[in-house]
Amino acid sequence: MAQSVLTIDLGAICANWRALAAMNDGETAAVVKANAYGLGAAKVAKALADEGARTFFVAQAEEGVSLRGALGSGPKIYVFGGHMDGDADLIRQADLVPMINSIDQMLRHVEALPGHPFGIQLDSGMNRLGMEPAEWSALREIALSQNPVLVMSHLACADDASHGMNEFQLQTFRQMTDGIDAPRSLAATGGVVMGAAYHFDMTRPGIGLYGGLPFVEARPVVSLSIPVIQVRDVNPGESVGYGNSWVARVQSRIATISAGYADGIIRAMGPKAHVWAGETRCKIVGRISMDLIGVDVGPVKDMPDRVELMGRHQSIDTLADAAGTIGYEILTSLGTRYARTYIST
Amino acid sequence: MAQSVLTIDLGAICANWRALAAMNDGETAAVVKANAYGLGAAKVAKALADEGARTFFVAQAEEGVSLRGALGSGPKIYVFGGHMDGDADLIRQADLVPMINSIDQMLRHVEALPGHPFGIQLDSGMNRLGMEPAEWSALREIALSQNPVLVMSHLACADDASHGMNEFQLQTFRQMTDGIDAPRSLAATGGVVMGAAYHFDMTRPGIGLYGGLPFVEARPVVSLSIPVIQVRDVNPGESVGYGNSWVARVQSRIATISAGYADGIIRAMGPKAHVWAGETRCKIVGRISMDLIGVDVGPVKDMPDRVELMGRHQSIDTLADAAGTIGYEILTSLGTRYARTYIST
Repeated sequence: MAQSVLTIDLGAICANWRALAAMNDGETAAVVKANAYGLGAAKVAKALADEGARTFFVAQAEEGVSLRGALGSGPKIYVFGGHMDGDADLIRQADLVPMINSIDQMLRHVEALPGHPFGIQLDSGMNRLGMEPAEWSALREIALSQNPVLVMSHLACADDASHGMNEFQLQTFRQMTDGIDAPRSLAATGGVVMGAAYHFDMTRPGIGLYGGLPFVEARPVVSLSIPVIQVRDVNPGESVGYGNSWVARVQSRIATISAGYADGIIRAMGPKAHVWAGETRCKIVGRISMDLIGVDVGPVKDMPDRVELMGRHQSIDTLADAAGTIGYEILTSLGTRYARTYIST
Repeated sequence: MAQSVLTIDLGAICANWRALAAMNDGETAAVVKANAYGLGAAKVAKALADEGARTFFVAQAEEGVSLRGALGSGPKIYVFGGHMDGDADLIRQADLVPMINSIDQMLRHVEALPGHPFGIQLDSGMNRLGMEPAEWSALREIALSQNPVLVMSHLACADDASHGMNEFQLQTFRQMTDGIDAPRSLAATGGVVMGAAYHFDMTRPGIGLYGGLPFVEARPVVSLSIPVIQVRDVNPGESVGYGNSWVARVQSRIATISAGYADGIIRAMGPKAHVWAGETRCKIVGRISMDLIGVDVGPVKDMPDRVELMGRHQSIDTLADAAGTIGYEILTSLGTRYARTYIST
């Protein structure tokens, strides 16, 4: 077996969902877009539905179709990207609820699927998805008369609770929506953590379910175990890996492990990242290759057959720091070559 | 359709293989590990087999099993990772040829599968995979008496033809193998380009097949077309995307497009990358999100429904420069959410 094993703890995901749900009084949905942040939308959503989640969010109608196939009828599936040209059949057949992002999308929706449920996405300052305040003013009365099932917006800086943008967006969202009858939603994981003012009628955690910051108390969800192919002695002056970027200064012992950037182990993390051989932290040496990584195992006494890149000793956020990115990208980058094992603890 | 469309030109891959094959007199294999660098090993390998390729390389036995299912019997499938513990059944059933990397692997192989074909991988200086010179000296006579089907090594610096490591590894490989009867292989794409001294009996191009450097004349293979969800005016002082990292200095027009780092558009490329709207180059603004990217479309006269991230206007290596990585990682990062279309031009 040169195949690495990625273990995904559905029990931890459910526990994280319960913990986030306990922090607010409204409904707690679950964001399972991007294949549940790379962890498998079908399995994750089914586990969360069994746990009591009734509403799921995806990014694109195509994802919604796939998710509907996994969940069957019953749970609500909302689509952040809204109603795109060509989506009508998907939305109708899979019973999806598009979040309408613009007047164009609104016209498209009522023309193609009159009476079909929809939500409204508003831009409260992120300038990414949703209607601008002026656009919303023009459309508001007509849209509300059609009974949107949800009116929502999204925070740009909720990973940093102290950022002034949060309060600005909260006030903007309130100005745009105070007094309407439709249920409202503003908070993803960061907003849940920031407290009741951000919760409204529904929260939509994503990264917190999967064990990532800014939900500090999250239970870890993924672990990755990588087989060792071989171990060699490297003399001072010899180099390891592509481009001779690492040169041994002392007599060294180097393990070659069977995973690489093709498995989503982001190449940029090479100079700063570590793996764990049993209880020993071992530095990655040389450039991360497509399928292979060199590791300095000099300090290891009893060399194991496998090493751990993430799991008990190391979180997705630690890896993200090494790669200069965020835990979200560590998860969504996880490749397709792993043996994926689902457990529930 | 919020789904982006990734188009893979199998005709271009075949043309690249033919061009590389024409540059050397020996057999030209094809490296299709990591799902053919993310492009789909089954389709790529079948196209190349139809083109005349008779030998394929994968990284792990599990990949070989999958490839054997796609190719059927006949083509040779070699496994760089060699014979790992637990691989014997896979190797026998899928008729794989492990490249033996160590004395441990050699013992494992002859014990579990006596008489089953194998190759030998030697370390000529990269210190990643393969037997060290001393190890090889000890095993050489016994190994050669078992008729290995190939003796190979791999270059650490072949992306840079002027690097002194290439000549060092060439001489080391010759010292380790001159005079043996078994076929020899040293060159991947970079080695093919460097000329006849590196070609030996078999070359093993990978990246060059898929349109990447260092095969400068390669035909481009992939193009990626991303739908535009909406376009908005952004006033000076307003920010776009997460963390408010981009702030409009002048009145701007921003498109939100439907792809992100979950699709393998590496988050780190945000500050430097562009997309193309028709014939107009447009800067990415703000942080790349999981499913969405903001683009400054101010200069665009007739806004199209879709923009191009890679393809006619922009190569994988241009994107790699923007992301601070190599074209290889651009390819292997390509996500699973695309509508993948295979063409042959």
